[in-house]
Amino acid sequence: MPDYMQEAFAAAEMAGRRGEVPIGAVVVHSGLQRIVGRAGNEVEDRGDATAHAEMLAIRGASRMLGQKFLSECDLYVTLEPCPMCAQAIAFARIRRLYFAAFDPKGGGVENGPRIFEQPTCHHRLECYGGIQEMRSAELLRDFFAARR
Amino acid sequence: MPDYMQEAFAAAEMAGRRGEVPIGAVVVHSGLQRIVGRAGNEVEDRGDATAHAEMLAIRGASRMLGQKFLSECDLYVTLEPCPMCAQAIAFARIRRLYFAAFDPKGGGVENGPRIFEQPTCHHRLECYGGIQEMRSAELLRDFFAARR
Repeated sequence: MPDYMQEAFAAAEMAGRRGEVPIGAVVVHSGLQRIVGRAGNEVEDRGDATAHAEMLAIRGASRMLGQKFLSECDLYVTLEPCPMCAQAIAFARIRRLYFAAFDPKGGGVENGPRIFEQPTCHHRLECYGGIQEMRSAELLRDFFAARR
Repeated sequence: MPDYMQEAFAAAEMAGRRGEVPIGAVVVHSGLQRIVGRAGNEVEDRGDATAHAEMLAIRGASRMLGQKFLSECDLYVTLEPCPMCAQAIAFARIRRLYFAAFDPKGGGVENGPRIFEQPTCHHRLECYGGIQEMRSAELLRDFFAARR
């Protein structure tokens, strides 16, 4: 199996080189075993506070596949999704979520509102967190250290 | 003061005529007293599960103003925002939120995860819910009744 988290890290690193907080995401079609959406954080570039990597990758995948539900797709992202992105993942009916570092300050999956555990969230998906989490933590730490 | 909720309802009704769940939103710049973002739900038209009226109105306002933070802007929407949109509102630093009907099934402001009350949500804003709520409830009820 290709290392899709590696692809997410490549998108994160490219975002960091553009001056964005280095977070990256890819959407993979499980049947095709192909990346159908790929994005880094573009908040600064777009001047759009909602332009998180996951949102852009999901929108890209929906555009590529021509469908709003991504039930056969998995999302790989270098940081635990925030509540906005977690709810977007639920709306898009993503099959599995793989993420690297946990985010106690801003995450919405294992932290904060724990979106997928809300009684009003009807989409159930498999979540795997902590994959290469040190690499993600270092990437973010180096980015913020260089800005100080 | 212009009736901005009326403008949000106009966007909601237009969305309904396009076959979308009839929800509409406008972003108003409080200093300019002008609408800088306006959208109806476009989930079906775009084939994008995240294309809620609030998301599109916020993105439109950021594009128009050329800034990611909308600290001088207020959002008017015909239904209580879901958790995704509530978090987007917080990220965009919207000043005030006015919404019509409460949404016990899918809302994220006064229901569900109550995004703005989460300790991890650092943006504080004024929220006013229940404005013309019967009109919003009827609009949604008629839409779903016609589809059965």
